[in-house]
Amino acid sequence: MSLARVQHISISLDGFATGEGLSHEAPFGHAGERLHAWVFATRWGRGLQGKAGGSGGVDDAFVRMFAPGIGAEIMGAGKFGYPGWHEGPEWKGWWGPNPPFHTPVFVLTHRPRPSIEMEGGTTFHFLDASPAAALAAAREAAGGLDVRIGGGPSTARDFLAAGLVDHMHVVVVPILLGRGVRLWDGLEGLEQDYDVESVSTPSGVTHVTFTRTGSAG
Amino acid sequence: MSLARVQHISISLDGFATGEGLSHEAPFGHAGERLHAWVFATRWGRGLQGKAGGSGGVDDAFVRMFAPGIGAEIMGAGKFGYPGWHEGPEWKGWWGPNPPFHTPVFVLTHRPRPSIEMEGGTTFHFLDASPAAALAAAREAAGGLDVRIGGGPSTARDFLAAGLVDHMHVVVVPILLGRGVRLWDGLEGLEQDYDVESVSTPSGVTHVTFTRTGSAG
Repeated sequence: MSLARVQHISISLDGFATGEGLSHEAPFGHAGERLHAWVFATRWGRGLQGKAGGSGGVDDAFVRMFAPGIGAEIMGAGKFGYPGWHEGPEWKGWWGPNPPFHTPVFVLTHRPRPSIEMEGGTTFHFLDASPAAALAAAREAAGGLDVRIGGGPSTARDFLAAGLVDHMHVVVVPILLGRGVRLWDGLEGLEQDYDVESVSTPSGVTHVTFTRTGSAG
Repeated sequence: MSLARVQHISISLDGFATGEGLSHEAPFGHAGERLHAWVFATRWGRGLQGKAGGSGGVDDAFVRMFAPGIGAEIMGAGKFGYPGWHEGPEWKGWWGPNPPFHTPVFVLTHRPRPSIEMEGGTTFHFLDASPAAALAAAREAAGGLDVRIGGGPSTARDFLAAGLVDHMHVVVVPILLGRGVRLWDGLEGLEQDYDVESVSTPSGVTHVTFTRTGSAG
C-alpha cells in the first residue's frame, strides 16, 4: 500500500517550521539554518554537501529514511521558491540543477506552469489542486511507492487536517524562534489518530513520529 | 546562592500549558488531566494521592526535584483559584487544607487580601507586584533557599521575559490541545541565555531543562 509520509519537518520548541521574512536570500527567514543544523551534522547530511564525516547515530538513521520507498513528492509553492518566483519564468526552484528528490515532484500553486525536467530524475509538475486531488496525482506517478508530503508547514498542515497523512516525522529543535509559520495550528486532537513516539538525541533535538493507528498491521 | 526555578511546567506539543474554558470545575479547561497524567504515573505522584506503586524512572526523578531546596513559591492568580475567586472571601485555593507547598507562597494578584495560613507549613501571601519585586519578597521569605516560579504559563513567561529565571524544567506531552494559554509567546531567542538539555522517557513525554549559562559554575 502506498503511504503518504511527512519526513523530517524541523520545528522550533515554540512550534515554528520557518521564520519570518522569507526571501530569495533567506529561504527560512530569520530562522536561517538553525532548524536544520542537526541534518548537516549527520553523515548523510554532510554527504549531500560532498563532505566526509558526521554523526552516525539516531539523527543519521532518521534522515536516511528520506528517500527509500518514496516515488513522488508534493510540496507547497514556498518550498519551490521565494515569494514572487511566479514572476520569474526562468526560476527552477531552490534545489540546483540536480535536486535531491530524484522523483516526480508536484508543486502546489495557484499559478501553474509547464513541467520542468531536471537532472537526476526530478521533474517538477505544477498543480492547482486540493490535497486529496494532488495526492491522487502523486500516487499515480509514484507507481505504487510512497508519497512524501514535503512541506512547508502550511502544506503539511493542510494534508494533516484533511486526514491524508499516514506517517509523520517531526523534529523539535530546542530554539525559540518567536515568529514565523507554525506547523500545529488548527490540529487539536491530531494525536488521537496516531501512535506517537518521542526520542531525544545527543545533538539536542527530539524526534517525534506519528504512525496512523492500525497502519502498522 | 538562591536560584529562581521553574519546576515541571507541562505543555502540549503545540505549546499550551493550560486549555481553554478554565472554571471551578475545570482547572485546566478542556485539557483536563492530560497534561499531568505523566506525574500521576510516577511513584512520587501516586504517593501524593496516598497510593502505592508507580514508575521509578526518569519521570519520577524529575518530579522529586519539586520540593528539595525550595524555600518559597510564587504563583499567578490563576494557579490559586478559578476565574472569579476574588469574589469569594472564603476561597483558600485549589489545594485543600494541607497544600503540597509547605513553604510561604506568594500569589500575584491585582486584588490582594490578608495572608492565609494553612496546615503543613504553607502560608498564602497576596501581592500586587512586578516580577522583580515579588522575587525579592519571596527570596526574603525563603531564607537563602531557592524560589519556585510555580506558574501558570503567563506567570512563568513574565519571569522569563524579565530575565529572572535561573533554571527551568518544561515537560512536553505529545498531545495537541489546539487552544489555551501558550508558554512560549514572546520569548524569541530565550535559549541563548541557557544550556538546554532534552530527554524523552518511556511514558512518551520529553523533559527539557534550561540552565542559565554559567550558573552551574
